[in-house]
Amino acid sequence: MAPRKIIIDTDPGQDDALAILLALGSPELEVLGITCVAGNVPLPLTIRNARLVCELAGRADMKIFAGCERPMVRDLVTAEAVHGETGLDGPNWDKPTMPVQEVHAVDWLVETLMAAEDGEITLCPVGPITNVAMAMVREPRIVGKIAEIVTMGGGFFVGGNTTPVAEFNVYVDPHAAAVMYRSGVPITTMPLDVTHKALMSPAWIESVREIGGEVGAKTAAMVSFYERYDLDRYGSRGGPLHDPATIAYLLRPELYGGKDVFVEVETQSELTMGMTVVDYWDRFGRPPNCRWISEVDSDGFFELIRERLANLPAGR
Amino acid sequence: MAPRKIIIDTDPGQDDALAILLALGSPELEVLGITCVAGNVPLPLTIRNARLVCELAGRADMKIFAGCERPMVRDLVTAEAVHGETGLDGPNWDKPTMPVQEVHAVDWLVETLMAAEDGEITLCPVGPITNVAMAMVREPRIVGKIAEIVTMGGGFFVGGNTTPVAEFNVYVDPHAAAVMYRSGVPITTMPLDVTHKALMSPAWIESVREIGGEVGAKTAAMVSFYERYDLDRYGSRGGPLHDPATIAYLLRPELYGGKDVFVEVETQSELTMGMTVVDYWDRFGRPPNCRWISEVDSDGFFELIRERLANLPAGR
Amino acid sequence: MAPRKIIIDTDPGQDDALAILLALGSPELEVLGITCVAGNVPLPLTIRNARLVCELAGRADMKIFAGCERPMVRDLVTAEAVHGETGLDGPNWDKPTMPVQEVHAVDWLVETLMAAEDGEITLCPVGPITNVAMAMVREPRIVGKIAEIVTMGGGFFVGGNTTPVAEFNVYVDPHAAAVMYRSGVPITTMPLDVTHKALMSPAWIESVREIGGEVGAKTAAMVSFYERYDLDRYGSRGGPLHDPATIAYLLRPELYGGKDVFVEVETQSELTMGMTVVDYWDRFGRPPNCRWISEVDSDGFFELIRERLANLPAGR
Amino acid sequence: MAPRKIIIDTDPGQDDALAILLALGSPELEVLGITCVAGNVPLPLTIRNARLVCELAGRADMKIFAGCERPMVRDLVTAEAVHGETGLDGPNWDKPTMPVQEVHAVDWLVETLMAAEDGEITLCPVGPITNVAMAMVREPRIVGKIAEIVTMGGGFFVGGNTTPVAEFNVYVDPHAAAVMYRSGVPITTMPLDVTHKALMSPAWIESVREIGGEVGAKTAAMVSFYERYDLDRYGSRGGPLHDPATIAYLLRPELYGGKDVFVEVETQSELTMGMTVVDYWDRFGRPPNCRWISEVDSDGFFELIRERLANLPAGR
Repeated sequence: MAPRKIIIDTDPGQDDALAILLALGSPELEVLGITCVAGNVPLPLTIRNARLVCELAGRADMKIFAGCERPMVRDLVTAEAVHGETGLDGPNWDKPTMPVQEVHAVDWLVETLMAAEDGEITLCPVGPITNVAMAMVREPRIVGKIAEIVTMGGGFFVGGNTTPVAEFNVYVDPHAAAVMYRSGVPITTMPLDVTHKALMSPAWIESVREIGGEVGAKTAAMVSFYERYDLDRYGSRGGPLHDPATIAYLLRPELYGGKDVFVEVETQSELTMGMTVVDYWDRFGRPPNCRWISEVDSDGFFELIRERLANLPAGR
Repeated sequence: MAPRKIIIDTDPGQDDALAILLALGSPELEVLGITCVAGNVPLPLTIRNARLVCELAGRADMKIFAGCERPMVRDLVTAEAVHGETGLDGPNWDKPTMPVQEVHAVDWLVETLMAAEDGEITLCPVGPITNVAMAMVREPRIVGKIAEIVTMGGGFFVGGNTTPVAEFNVYVDPHAAAVMYRSGVPITTMPLDVTHKALMSPAWIESVREIGGEVGAKTAAMVSFYERYDLDRYGSRGGPLHDPATIAYLLRPELYGGKDVFVEVETQSELTMGMTVVDYWDRFGRPPNCRWISEVDSDGFFELIRERLANLPAGR
Repeated sequence: MAPRKIIIDTDPGQDDALAILLALGSPELEVLGITCVAGNVPLPLTIRNARLVCELAGRADMKIFAGCERPMVRDLVTAEAVHGETGLDGPNWDKPTMPVQEVHAVDWLVETLMAAEDGEITLCPVGPITNVAMAMVREPRIVGKIAEIVTMGGGFFVGGNTTPVAEFNVYVDPHAAAVMYRSGVPITTMPLDVTHKALMSPAWIESVREIGGEVGAKTAAMVSFYERYDLDRYGSRGGPLHDPATIAYLLRPELYGGKDVFVEVETQSELTMGMTVVDYWDRFGRPPNCRWISEVDSDGFFELIRERLANLPAGR
Repeated sequence: MAPRKIIIDTDPGQDDALAILLALGSPELEVLGITCVAGNVPLPLTIRNARLVCELAGRADMKIFAGCERPMVRDLVTAEAVHGETGLDGPNWDKPTMPVQEVHAVDWLVETLMAAEDGEITLCPVGPITNVAMAMVREPRIVGKIAEIVTMGGGFFVGGNTTPVAEFNVYVDPHAAAVMYRSGVPITTMPLDVTHKALMSPAWIESVREIGGEVGAKTAAMVSFYERYDLDRYGSRGGPLHDPATIAYLLRPELYGGKDVFVEVETQSELTMGMTVVDYWDRFGRPPNCRWISEVDSDGFFELIRERLANLPAGR
C-alpha cells in the first residue's frame, strides 16, 4: 500500500520533535513537507528546530517552510518556561545546515493542496493553527482537498495548560482554531484529555536512550528536559508527550478511543479565551465537527515511538 | 455542643428536598429558616415544595421565606426536564398547609445576619445564588457576618449539566454567583466534580424505602423519578444527588476532599456563560476564594443520608 | 390638577442637586421621597448631599432613603474628578440635620409602588440604576405599577463621558440599566445627546446668583464648580446640566424632542461596557423600549430652572 | 513631482467605482494595482466590477488581483440591499474583457511592498480589511514599508450603517480591521462621520451626466441607483459617497479636518461587534493610531470628483 501523504505543521518544541521523528521513522507515512509557525518559541527558532530534527533523522532532504510569525489576530504568546529558551533545550545542538524553502508555508499549503486529488493529503497541525487557517482564508477551496486534519490541541475534561481552561496551541491563536473547526474538514483532535493519560516513565526514557546514536541520546535528553515542567507543576509521575499522539493515531488508530462531538472555540471572553468547548453530551444539537480522542493505550503508544525512533538511520 | 446554625437557600427540586431532609434529620444542625428562589421550577412551586418537604419531615414550624422569582440580570431558565413539572415529581403530594413567612427572603437574610454575631450563621445555597447575592448588594456588611458558605453549584473537570461548560445553578444566575465568589466570604463548593462521584444504587434506594413511613416512601419515589434523567442522558449506572452534599459536608467533612482555589464565574461570553472557571493549577496567581471539593466517600455519603432520614419522625 | 407623584433616585452630585431643587420648586410635582445610591460619590456622601439639598430647599420634611452602596455586579466607580471630593463641592455646607428614613430604599420603592395604583408613580433615576433594578428583581410586579421612568443616562451620537462609549450612570451599573431597559416599563431617556445641547452661560449662572439667599448663592457656587470639568475636558463654552433634564421634561415636555427606539445596554465586552446601544435606524426590528430625547429648547430649559429655583423659600 | 504610488483594495460597489475612477482620473496618483476582496458582493462580482470600472476609465492595462473571498474569522456578510445584486447596479454593463492577474492579491501586496522602498506605497482599503490584514499576518515586515493607510470604514458620532454601531466594512471583517489598527502603520480613516457630511445633490448628479460619454452616463446611473438606499432609510436629502473620500483626501487633504485619536475595534461582543471605538477625548491615555476625519468641504469634494471624471478618456 502506498504510504499516506501528510504535512506536519509545527512549532518545535521537544514534543513536536518527537512527532516529526515518529513520522520520519514510519514507512506508512510520506511527509510531503514541514511547515513552521510561531508558537512554543518565535518563528526563527521553530524553523531552526525543524531543521535540526530533520537532520537528526537523516532527512536533510525534507522540505521545510517558514510560515506565520504571529497569530491571526492576537499578539504572540510563547512558552519558553516549558521548552527552554531555544524550544529544543536538553541536548547540545550544532547549527542546522539544511535549507529552508523559499516559498511561504501558507502559499505552499495552498499550492500543494490545490494540485492534489481530493482527499489525498492529511494535515497534522501540532502548533497554533495559524498557517492552516490562513491557507483556508486565502483559498477556501483547499477545504475540499484535505483528507483529514489530525491535530494536537485543546482540552476539556482536564482543563487547560496555559490558562485554567485553555491549552497552549489553541490559546495562542484561538481565531485560527475557530476557522479550522468551522471549516467542515474532518478533524480528529488529540487534546490534553488524552495526552495526559500517557505519561513517560524513567524506564521508557532509558529505553529510548538505549536506542543509541544521536537519535537515542538527543531524544532522551529532549524528553528529560521537557518533562521537568509537568513534574514541577502538576506533581505527576511523568511528563506527557502531546504532539506525537497525532502521528501515533495515524499509524495505529486502534490505540485510541474517542467520540464524535461538536467543538467550538471561545474567542469572545478574556477569561475563557481559547477554550475548546466540547459539546460532549450534545446539548447544542449541532452536527459533530470533530472526533475528540480521550482514551489511549499508553504502553502501545510509547512502544510505538521507541520502535520507530529505532528505525531512524541516525539511531543505528 | 450547640448545633450549628444554618440557612438553606433552595429551589426544590428532589435533590434539594433531600438536602432539607438531611439537615432536618441532623441534631448537629439548627436550620434557622429556608429561603426559596426560582430555579429548577418557578418560585411558586419552589415555595410549595419547600413546604411539602418540611411537612414530610414533621417540621411544619419551619420558617419558609419567598425570595426572588427571577435572576439578577438574565431571564429565568428552569429545569422541568430533570425534575418534572412540579419540581418534586415522583410521589403523590397533598397540598401543603404550613405557612410562608411574610417578609421577603432577601430582607430576612439581611436582618438575620445583621442581628447575628460575626461568624454565627452558615449559608447553604443549593439553587441559583440570586437571594444571597441580592442580600449582599442590598447590605454589603452581611459579608462579615457569614461564617461560611457551603454551596452546590458549578463544575470543572466534568463539564456542565446545562451547557457543555455550565452547571444549572450557576448558569441560571451567573451574575449572582459572580457576586458571591468575589464577596470574600469563605466558600466551600460542592460541584458536579464531586456530586458525579457519588451515584445512587438500586440497593440504596431500596434501603431508603425500607425506612418506611411517608419519609421512606416519598423519598424513594422522589429519587427514583429524579435519577431517570441522568440515566438517560449519561448512561450512568446511577443518578447523583447534588444538593445533599452541602449538608453532608457540614455534618461529616471528613467524607470529602478538595483544594483551595481561585474561582471566577464567566459572565461575558454566551458560549461559556455561567462556567465556574477554576484556576486549579494557580496560573492567575490570585488568592483562593473557595474550597473546591472533588473527592467523596460515596458509601459514607449515602449511609449518612439513609441514617438521618431514618431519624425523621415521619419516617418512623 | 393634582400634582404628579414622583420618586427621585439619585447620587448627588451638583446636577442631581439641581434636579432635586427644580422638582421641589415645582408645584406640578409631588416628590414622594428621595432614594440615594452610590455613584458620583460613595453612598454616605450621596445621602449627606441629598439631605443638604433638601434643607437648602426648606424641605427638611422630605423622606430620604439610603439605598445600595455598590452596583449589582461590578465594583463601584466614582467620579470625584467631576464633582469634587464631597460630590457637592463649590459652596460651603454645614452638616445636615434632617433625618434619614430607617427603611432601605429598595424596600421602600417596592412597598410604595405595590401600595400605589397602577400608573400612579413616576420614577426619576438620575444616578446608577442599582436601586430601581434591585427593586425590580426583588418584586417584579412593581413593573406594572410604575407610570413611567424618566431617567438621565447613556449617550449615543456624542459618545460617552466615562469611557469613549459609556456614560457614567450606565457605566457604573450596566447590569442594572440592562434590567431597567428590558423591564417593559415606559422609559424616557435624557442622554448626553440632549444634555450636551444645553450648556450653561455665565449670564445664566449670574441670573441664578441674583435669585439671592442661600439658594441663589449655593446653586451658583455648585454649578460654577461643576462646569469646570467640562470646560477643561471638552473646551466647550459652558457646562451641561444633566440630571435636571428629567424634571424639566416632566414639567415641560414640549421643550424636548426625541424618537421611540430600541435600546440595549452592553454588558459583555470590557471595551464597550455600559454603552447604551440605540437602534436609531431600526436595524434589529425590535419594538421600541424607550423614548430617546435628543433635542431641547436650551433657553427654555435654563429659564425654567431659574424660575423654579426662585420659587424656593430659601431663595427669597 | 512624481505621482504618489497607491494600491486600491476594494469590493466594488458603486462608491468604490467612483473611488477608482477618481484615482484613475488624477495624474497626481499612480495606481499600482487594484486588489479585490469580498464585501459588498461576493468576490467574483467584485473582481468583475473592478474590471468593468477600469475598462470604463480606459485603463484595461490596470493590474487587478483577486484576493480573499471570506473574512478572516467570521462568515461573509454582503450588502446587495444597498448595491444591487451585481454590486454595480444602475447602468447596463457588458461583460468585462480585461485580464485578472494570476497571483493572489495577498501575495502581490506582500511582494510589492517588500520590493518597495520604505514609505513608497500608500494603501487605500475601501472594503473589508481582509486582504491587508492577511498580508500583515503573512509578512509582518510590510508594516514598515507602507507609507500610510487611507481607509474608508467605521463611524463613531453617527453610529453605524449595518448594525446600530458598526459600519459595513469593519463589521464584515472586524478582526482584520483590528489587525490594521494595531499594526503601527499611520492610518487616516474616512468614517461615516465625514462621509455623511457630503451628500450628493440632483444638480451634481446632473453635472456628472453632462460630462457625457460612457463615464458620464454610467457614473450618473450608478450614483442614482446607489443613493436610493440612503434616501429610503435615512430620509436624507442626498446620498453619501463613502469610498472616494479616501482618494479625495490624498489629492486635496485641505478639504478635510480631523483629529489624531486612538481607535480600537470591538471583536468580543455580538451587540457591538465591528464598532470602531474612538477614544475621542483621550480617556484611555493610549497613543493615537489614527487620524479620524470628521470635517469636509462638501462642495470641494464633489467638484473634485466631477472634474477628475471629466479627465477620463472615456468621458470625452
